[in-house]
Amino acid sequence: MNKKVLVIGAVAAGPKAACRAKRLMPDADITIVDMDNLISYGGCGIPFYVSGEVADEKALRSTTYQMLRDAAYFRDAKGINVLTGTKALSINRKEKTVLVKNLDSGNEEELKYDNLVLATGSAPNILPIAGNNLGGVFAISDLHKAIAIKEKLAKGEVSNAVVIGGGAIGIEMAEAFADMWGIKTTVIEYMPQLLPRILPKTIAMMLEKHLKDKGIAVYTGTSAKEIKGVDGKVTGVITENSEIPADIVIMAAGVRPRSELARDAGLNVSHSGAIVVNNRMQTSDPAIYACGDCVEIINPLTGKRTIAPMGSLANREGRVVGDNLAGIPSTFNGWVGSFIMKAFDICVGGTGLSIEAAKAEGYDAIESLVCGYDRTHFYPESSLMFLSLVADKKTRRVLGLQGYANMGDALLARINAIAAILDKKPLIEDIGNMELAYAPPFSTAVDTLNFAGYIADNILSGKLRAIELDDFLNWMDGKTENPDWMVLDLRHERESRPFVKKFADKWLSVPYNKIRYEMDKIPDNKTLIILCNSATRSYEIQCFLDGQGNKNTLVLLGGINLLKRLDIKWWP
Amino acid sequence: MNKKVLVIGAVAAGPKAACRAKRLMPDADITIVDMDNLISYGGCGIPFYVSGEVADEKALRSTTYQMLRDAAYFRDAKGINVLTGTKALSINRKEKTVLVKNLDSGNEEELKYDNLVLATGSAPNILPIAGNNLGGVFAISDLHKAIAIKEKLAKGEVSNAVVIGGGAIGIEMAEAFADMWGIKTTVIEYMPQLLPRILPKTIAMMLEKHLKDKGIAVYTGTSAKEIKGVDGKVTGVITENSEIPADIVIMAAGVRPRSELARDAGLNVSHSGAIVVNNRMQTSDPAIYACGDCVEIINPLTGKRTIAPMGSLANREGRVVGDNLAGIPSTFNGWVGSFIMKAFDICVGGTGLSIEAAKAEGYDAIESLVCGYDRTHFYPESSLMFLSLVADKKTRRVLGLQGYANMGDALLARINAIAAILDKKPLIEDIGNMELAYAPPFSTAVDTLNFAGYIADNILSGKLRAIELDDFLNWMDGKTENPDWMVLDLRHERESRPFVKKFADKWLSVPYNKIRYEMDKIPDNKTLIILCNSATRSYEIQCFLDGQGNKNTLVLLGGINLLKRLDIKWWP
Repeated sequence: MNKKVLVIGAVAAGPKAACRAKRLMPDADITIVDMDNLISYGGCGIPFYVSGEVADEKALRSTTYQMLRDAAYFRDAKGINVLTGTKALSINRKEKTVLVKNLDSGNEEELKYDNLVLATGSAPNILPIAGNNLGGVFAISDLHKAIAIKEKLAKGEVSNAVVIGGGAIGIEMAEAFADMWGIKTTVIEYMPQLLPRILPKTIAMMLEKHLKDKGIAVYTGTSAKEIKGVDGKVTGVITENSEIPADIVIMAAGVRPRSELARDAGLNVSHSGAIVVNNRMQTSDPAIYACGDCVEIINPLTGKRTIAPMGSLANREGRVVGDNLAGIPSTFNGWVGSFIMKAFDICVGGTGLSIEAAKAEGYDAIESLVCGYDRTHFYPESSLMFLSLVADKKTRRVLGLQGYANMGDALLARINAIAAILDKKPLIEDIGNMELAYAPPFSTAVDTLNFAGYIADNILSGKLRAIELDDFLNWMDGKTENPDWMVLDLRHERESRPFVKKFADKWLSVPYNKIRYEMDKIPDNKTLIILCNSATRSYEIQCFLDGQGNKNTLVLLGGINLLKRLDIKWWP
Repeated sequence: MNKKVLVIGAVAAGPKAACRAKRLMPDADITIVDMDNLISYGGCGIPFYVSGEVADEKALRSTTYQMLRDAAYFRDAKGINVLTGTKALSINRKEKTVLVKNLDSGNEEELKYDNLVLATGSAPNILPIAGNNLGGVFAISDLHKAIAIKEKLAKGEVSNAVVIGGGAIGIEMAEAFADMWGIKTTVIEYMPQLLPRILPKTIAMMLEKHLKDKGIAVYTGTSAKEIKGVDGKVTGVITENSEIPADIVIMAAGVRPRSELARDAGLNVSHSGAIVVNNRMQTSDPAIYACGDCVEIINPLTGKRTIAPMGSLANREGRVVGDNLAGIPSTFNGWVGSFIMKAFDICVGGTGLSIEAAKAEGYDAIESLVCGYDRTHFYPESSLMFLSLVADKKTRRVLGLQGYANMGDALLARINAIAAILDKKPLIEDIGNMELAYAPPFSTAVDTLNFAGYIADNILSGKLRAIELDDFLNWMDGKTENPDWMVLDLRHERESRPFVKKFADKWLSVPYNKIRYEMDKIPDNKTLIILCNSATRSYEIQCFLDGQGNKNTLVLLGGINLLKRLDIKWWP
């Protein structure tokens, strides 16, 4: 008898598990069921479809060799049976059957299995606020919703969009609306920053500024209280502060696992509603596997289990399931939180813990925030990149890296290097010593990632003493009084002049290459906040002043290059 | 008494060691001597200066904040004394002095040191052939040579260039001549492929084709026998086969360490002429350190010591020296061979051992050659990337990765991920499971690097059986007779038609999604060489045919996408 494998869910993890299993067991009898008729699509591509960069939704459902991944494709090319428009109603674990219903005909039948795979995915959270069911309010639960949104845009029905949720999908959708369709777009995020938890506050502030520069209104620390409508159609979103007009509202407030089927069958499901699996993606019933957005996976850094709804993980998990179905004991070892995303002309991304997340986990953590070039500065296309390397003070262990760079793969190249080793418990010296490929069109002789390791080392050895950005900004904003503070600006006089002029009492200019000869200008009763473009010169002068016996200095990491990318009112 | 540090060599490693030491020991008395007057330049930028992409040589000697790194800069900004135009003649280790000579005045003096740092660099190999000293024959030993070359180009004196040496510098120089100056350019490489030892032959063949497509003549397996000239000026290069006209000849035949000073002082110097150091970059005299192109470093993969003349390593080594001078026992742990380079519209790079290098090291190695997208195929700017992952059959240990991609940082992002872990002895399952950041504008849901890990796994488990590219090409070229071989082309009929027409007797077309219904077309007395665009479908059908009891099949890894990028005469 050929092994019978039944897979529930035909988007990403399910088909991957099924296809891998079929390649390993050509004789197996494999069936996938899915409620939907549109299957095996790249859900991560939806914002790019909505924007128009991907013209046709069929592109999201096609192979690289231009075959549409429909049921006929799976049957003819893969030898896999797919029942679309078919809902799984319940699992009979004792009999090893699943009751399914054809949504067109209403017919129900029992499908037998030797192994069952649950790839039931996730559903977007719907905020429990008035108006959440008005016409024009969307949560992106599937490709149909994306098609409906794009049709609405194409008809010219949308002038004002509000995106609720400043996570990755929210920001991608906002860009799609604003950049490609010229729609006045607002993003509301109830946490105090964009991409909360995964980006450090500093980089989130830079991202926010970039979105604003591109015409998007961003309100962080702001909740959607109610969605208003007329004649059943959305007209605006009410927050604590205002009413924002809207012809369309996107709820991008996270997702929850679809695990009802598993729970009803008595499988182990977590408090957060995710299916619990071991590292072979096996549920509490050894005959049943689960993978994709519906499961919880472990973060080896924190030891905690979370959902991680990403297409890349769904595929890797699906392959592990396929292996195990065929008797190969492959394992999936978790996720340390690597991500990357485009936002107009820049990208942000990271892996592991941000400085705030590390502190929240109880680490006595430090942040090495550096600004460096993505390729040699003399190479024509070079541009600045910001990296935030996070490490534990006590053990020197690296906990994470996040960054901000111009669009392209430069940031990816640094994140991937850290993502590759993060579960191997690297120390900060491993980052300074890390071997990275070098040539002028690709990196700097001291790669900015190596440099971030060096700076972390300098911080931990006490040689580099930095000021918190917030402390600096609050002081400049007049929110705190620090009469003993003074900026020591090491840049060329031409660059520092407007600052000295505007902030005469607290901004001192002594160029980097003159300080050894102009020590008389340096006040000895002030805390000097040393500033240059990137902080490289600032650190050097901090060392020099230490040698002169003046240790009352602090470096502003990221320097003017960082400040320029923040939404600062006092800029001269 | 302040510590006296004397550094010999002021290009890359020397200044880095000096500056790091000065930051750690602000009181130290640090002097650098260099024969040249042009110091602290980015030598790796020379080809980009010659091309004109970098307009002024001063850019190679300037900081990111536009200060020229001359002796005054080191004195004023760094507090470091630099003696330019000063040659170190000999070391008196007993007295801890170095005899130096001012090349302008001819004056000699003895400089004292507590610690000495040798950063004497490397010199290009000069081929011992007639005419090697003719006017117009250059080896790029320093910035002066680069300036002289560019002046010659700017005067319009060059119509024909010959580059001897198909390594990174040779190829970069050839691009500079051909792309920016429109010069008819020839590259001669005496080994049978470009970038011998560091690129697998397959990728080197793709690179060669790309250079030829850009108008460069490439002769591999070819030696320069003599350089011809008239009136002391070069006119051509004679090889085994022909005379190639030349107004300029670049010798890019590798470099040798400059270690005379060290050897004369009785320091341990290797057979290859490199200064021997421990992992703290200390020579056989504990008071003397060495770093940069003049030292040998260990390759942790092979256990062998080699020179590795790269600006990135010089900087990292220099920092280790700076630390040790200040009593911090930092170590430099070697180099596994990571590199990357631009060649017109594409780039190639790698880390660790190529398949040929692995075999030469005695490994029973396999190559997982994959062709995948650098970002999701539906994303507008996606393009193909080729990766060659090398692993040891017995231990499943990953030995290296090389690749070919369109210009940009996509390849870098994959190389860096492997470079970061290669010395941690990853297994191929670690590559399949490797966590890499994903979003459609940056990668594919199954990253091409993960995919390379999967394919390596399929090869090692015997599920994927591949044909050697050479065997296939020789057969197609009629160099070998294999009457039992037949191509099974799985592409759409439209794509395979011209091949079937031209090679009726050995090329069979059965599209991927029809094969399950057209098994009668499959001959059972032939070895089928399964072919599609990338090999993804080929592997799937190999599994399917295995299940049908037909195991007499081989997959051509890389598929048509690879063949298209080779210099193939039989293309229909």
